[in-house]
Amino acid sequence: MGTMITSFDDLLRGAASLKPKRILVANPANAETFQAIADAQVKLPTHFLLVGNRATIEGGLADAGGDPRKAEVVAAATVQEALEKAIGLARQEKADVLMKGSVDTSTMMRAVLQDSSGLKTGRLLSDIFILEFPERKDNKLIMITDGGMSLSLELKNKVDLIKNAVFVAHALGNPDPKVAVLSATEFVLPNLQSTLDAAALSKMNERGQIKGCVVDGPLALDNAISPEAAEEKGIRSKVAGRADILLAANIESANSLAKSTTYFAGLRLAHVIVGSRIPILIPSRADKSDAKLLSIATGMLMSEQPWKEE
Amino acid sequence: MGTMITSFDDLLRGAASLKPKRILVANPANAETFQAIADAQVKLPTHFLLVGNRATIEGGLADAGGDPRKAEVVAAATVQEALEKAIGLARQEKADVLMKGSVDTSTMMRAVLQDSSGLKTGRLLSDIFILEFPERKDNKLIMITDGGMSLSLELKNKVDLIKNAVFVAHALGNPDPKVAVLSATEFVLPNLQSTLDAAALSKMNERGQIKGCVVDGPLALDNAISPEAAEEKGIRSKVAGRADILLAANIESANSLAKSTTYFAGLRLAHVIVGSRIPILIPSRADKSDAKLLSIATGMLMSEQPWKEE
Repeated sequence: MGTMITSFDDLLRGAASLKPKRILVANPANAETFQAIADAQVKLPTHFLLVGNRATIEGGLADAGGDPRKAEVVAAATVQEALEKAIGLARQEKADVLMKGSVDTSTMMRAVLQDSSGLKTGRLLSDIFILEFPERKDNKLIMITDGGMSLSLELKNKVDLIKNAVFVAHALGNPDPKVAVLSATEFVLPNLQSTLDAAALSKMNERGQIKGCVVDGPLALDNAISPEAAEEKGIRSKVAGRADILLAANIESANSLAKSTTYFAGLRLAHVIVGSRIPILIPSRADKSDAKLLSIATGMLMSEQPWKEE
Repeated sequence: MGTMITSFDDLLRGAASLKPKRILVANPANAETFQAIADAQVKLPTHFLLVGNRATIEGGLADAGGDPRKAEVVAAATVQEALEKAIGLARQEKADVLMKGSVDTSTMMRAVLQDSSGLKTGRLLSDIFILEFPERKDNKLIMITDGGMSLSLELKNKVDLIKNAVFVAHALGNPDPKVAVLSATEFVLPNLQSTLDAAALSKMNERGQIKGCVVDGPLALDNAISPEAAEEKGIRSKVAGRADILLAANIESANSLAKSTTYFAGLRLAHVIVGSRIPILIPSRADKSDAKLLSIATGMLMSEQPWKEE
């Protein structure tokens, strides 16, 4: 990687400088997906494999201003067949990144999580949100995890979530990301499990059980991202006020937090699933226009990063 | 109330039109608190009872541009004495609103929650965040609950949290607020408790067990506040896209969500504790400058609203 990626502009530049990546799309069939593919054809070194109805794909991509001749179409008659063929192609290592088109996210992830998919690695799969916070000086990219893969978060899962997010941070050239374990307070409260988990995760990091990052928590969101709020509270920490990765206390909290940055703050958001053999993108139709392109760029960068258990 | 309060400007106008309210402050001792008192002396019909060190109070309030002669000072030698005297005055109905100065929030709330405080009503105490979302057309004020009073949220508590938030909405002139019960998804998932709670709360509302509002959930944040996101998902609901009250799934989620609106989105936030005999304000030192004034205005409006069990 070399230099650290600290903004979405950097991210797009980084992806643009890569060797061409093969992006496999399961059932592209709506205008938003075709627009993302058309954009990526122009702006990023990509080769698309599009699995679905040939006429829909060729017409849709042309309508979006893309070039069907530069994409490889694999015909499939139904959504289910498109999904199965896409996963088969991924299993045969025909792709660097897998992206969903018009497929229900839960259907897609159930298929990925089957043993027969060949896409599992034994690691936990998790979804990493990456948002750009323009007000921040040094590293504008803040990650939030988990994006929605893990319904219930036990301590063991949180360890894996941190490792996956750190894996993404390393791929973005950040060798030692600061991980804030979020709760509602910076104090350890015996009857609030997320604060106990946070203390345990911090200590595991100190003892070398979680490597390649600095972990601190519990922290409330303001203590994690605002140096002023952290100072006001007198929190002494390498992470407080400067977190690169926010580990949410639970799935509801991660979801609300990520959506709040989009809907209340109007920030841009990319997201990528890691832990599978290749990065998986599950863009939402409601994503802002450039979110899909940013997610594709993130997936491309991730596809270059070898996983190593630290 | 008459007209509905749909913005913070409305809120300040509404509070400004009230008969004078007695605001009791436990141990005012920092510049931010004195500034809030000084602002309120000018902008709102208030009479302040300030309990603490007389010299500190008179000097601090004058420094902030306030008028110590218009405030009533009750001398107390220590923080603990100030807190006890303040609660005693509240018990004797000498105040319409109780606000914390330089007192640790948990110390203050422990004192309030003692049976001897005389401030309990048998109802659950909860903290309601009110944020102003300028992009919204009709009602710009969105409430988030719980702000941090309840560490663990069982279904029974969530019923009370809704009732308390609805009580605030009614005080702001909204006769039939739309309550979104948040989770990470709009689907009911048997292994995600917050979605089951949401379904139960919706049905309780349908059956008349929760009155004076329309409750719907589970909803993810985007479905709750964005009409476009709700429509994109095809959710048919009176609440989706137009929620006035957001019931967070848990304390961590409420905290992250409220702080995200402040720190990522830069929105203004007031908050007030209800369920006690008089409204209680626990402003944070890190609050933005006008948050305390908005909270005082909210407390004043709440003090006019009689609680009725519906």
